[in-house]
Amino acid sequence: MTRFERVAVIGVGLIGGSFALALKAANACGRVIGAGRDRENLRIALERGVIDRIAADAGEAVHEADLVLVSVPVGQVPAVFAAIAPALAPGAVITDAGSTKRDAVAAARGSLGKHIARLVPAHPIAGAEYSGAAAGRSDLFRGKRVVLAPVAETAPEALAQAEAAWKACGARIFRMTPEEHDAVFAAISHLPHLLAFALVHEIAGRANSAQLLGYAAGGFRDFTRIASSHPEIWRDICLANRDALLAELSSFGKELATVRALLEAGDAAGLEDLFARARDARRRWLGGEFEP
Amino acid sequence: MTRFERVAVIGVGLIGGSFALALKAANACGRVIGAGRDRENLRIALERGVIDRIAADAGEAVHEADLVLVSVPVGQVPAVFAAIAPALAPGAVITDAGSTKRDAVAAARGSLGKHIARLVPAHPIAGAEYSGAAAGRSDLFRGKRVVLAPVAETAPEALAQAEAAWKACGARIFRMTPEEHDAVFAAISHLPHLLAFALVHEIAGRANSAQLLGYAAGGFRDFTRIASSHPEIWRDICLANRDALLAELSSFGKELATVRALLEAGDAAGLEDLFARARDARRRWLGGEFEP
Repeated sequence: MTRFERVAVIGVGLIGGSFALALKAANACGRVIGAGRDRENLRIALERGVIDRIAADAGEAVHEADLVLVSVPVGQVPAVFAAIAPALAPGAVITDAGSTKRDAVAAARGSLGKHIARLVPAHPIAGAEYSGAAAGRSDLFRGKRVVLAPVAETAPEALAQAEAAWKACGARIFRMTPEEHDAVFAAISHLPHLLAFALVHEIAGRANSAQLLGYAAGGFRDFTRIASSHPEIWRDICLANRDALLAELSSFGKELATVRALLEAGDAAGLEDLFARARDARRRWLGGEFEP
Repeated sequence: MTRFERVAVIGVGLIGGSFALALKAANACGRVIGAGRDRENLRIALERGVIDRIAADAGEAVHEADLVLVSVPVGQVPAVFAAIAPALAPGAVITDAGSTKRDAVAAARGSLGKHIARLVPAHPIAGAEYSGAAAGRSDLFRGKRVVLAPVAETAPEALAQAEAAWKACGARIFRMTPEEHDAVFAAISHLPHLLAFALVHEIAGRANSAQLLGYAAGGFRDFTRIASSHPEIWRDICLANRDALLAELSSFGKELATVRALLEAGDAAGLEDLFARARDARRRWLGGEFEP
C-alpha cells in the first residue's frame, strides 16, 4: 500500500480533518502537519489528534511533505498555491478538495510552476452542513465518491499516488475533466444550494417571517438543509463557478416559467405529468439506476 | 374523553389510515368505516385492521357516523362533500385533512347545507413521501401540528369535538383563518414542493440527465425529497391554492433576480451576507425560536 510519511493539510476543516483522520485510520500516513487561518481550530485539531503539529504557515507545512492536501474555501486556493510553491519538495503530490475545478487548475497554472505535474485536482462528494476540525470523522469519505480531474500536465505517477490516498480514505474514484466537472456540479449541487439559501433568505426577510417559520415542517427542513452550509465556502464556490451557475439559473428560470404557465392555465394534466416525471426520475435515481 | 362510536374515513390513504389507527390506539373510537376509489387499497386497510368495514360509497360510509374525516386529494373534496351531505347524521362532526383550506370552505358552503355548522376544516402538518393505507401509522400525528381553520358558521361544540379527535391522535392544535392558512403554507410548503418538482423535472429532461444524476449526492437527495410526493395530491394543492402560489413564485423570482445580480456583479460580500442571513435564520428555526 502507498504510504505517505509526511502529510501537509492546508485548511483543517471538516474535509481536511477527515482526510487526515482517514489516512491515519488506514495506517496510510506518518505525521500530519496542519496549517490554517483559525488558530483555535488548529489547536482543537491538534488536541484531538487530527494533526500532529501546527505549522507556522502553509509554506512551512509543506516543507518535506510527500503529500499535500489543500482544503480551504476555493477563493483561497490561488493564494495557498502561491504560498506553497517555493517550499514544495520536488516529489510532493498535491491534491485539493474544492467543489470547483477549473479555478483550481487556472490557479495552479499561474503559480505552481513545474509542480503542476504533481497536482491532482480532486473533489470529494462528501459534505455536511457542519464545519471545522471538530466535525472531522475518519469515515467521512467511506463509500463516497471522489472525482479526480487531472489535466494534461498531470504526471501518471502523481495521479496514481493521489488516487491511492483517496482510496485509502475509503472513497470510490471517478474521473472527469475540470470543465465537465464544473458543469455537472453547477446543475446538481451549486444551483440547489443557491435555491435553498435564496428561499430561506426570502422568507426570513418578511415582516411575518416568525409566523411563517413557525409552521415550517419536515419538507421545509429537508429542502433547506443545505442552506445551513458555510456562507464563505459557498460564496467562493458560486463565484468560482459563476458562468456555469448563471447558465443553470437561466435554465431553472425557464422551467419555472413553464410551471407558472401551467398554473396560470389551470392545466391539471400538465402539472400532474410534470410532477410524475420528477417523482419517477427521483425514484430511479434512488434505485441506483444512474450510478456512474 | 370524547369517544366516537362510528367514524367514517373517506380516503383511506396515509393520512386517513393513520387517523383511524391513532383513534383506535387511543381507544377514542368504536368502528371505523372506510370508503375510497381504490378497492385494493381499501382491502389492504381492512386486512390490516385500519378500518373495520368497507362502505359501498362515501354516502353509505357516513350514514350513522358521529365523526367523518374527509382525507382525499383536495380536488375531490367538493364531490365528496356533495356525496355525503344527504347522508350525514344531524350531529356528525366533519373534519378534513387537506393542505389547503379556502377551497374546502368554499366547497362546504356550496354543498354541505346546514351541516357546515359541524364542519371543522383541518390541516395536519404530518406528511411523508409515502402514500396509501399500508403506510398508515398510529403515531403519525404524535407531537405534530394540526391547524384548525373554523369559519363563522362552525358551531363551538363541533370545534371542541374535532379538536378532541385530533388531540386523541397525539397532535398539537393551532388555529388560523382559512385565508391565513393558505398564505402561510403557500410560502413554506407549496412553493418548496413546486421548486423541488421543477428542479428534478428540469434535470431529468436533459440529454445528459443520467450523468448529472449519477453524481447527485446527499444535498440533492434532501433538497428533492419532496419531489417524491404524490403527483395527484400536489397537482390538486397547487391548483386549489393557485393565487397564493403564483404570488409566492413571483416573490421567489424577485429573490432569484437579486441573487443573479450579485453573481453577475461578482459581489462576494453581498453573496456571503445573503447566505449567512439564510443560515442564521435556519439555525434559529431549528433552535425552536419560532415555535407558535
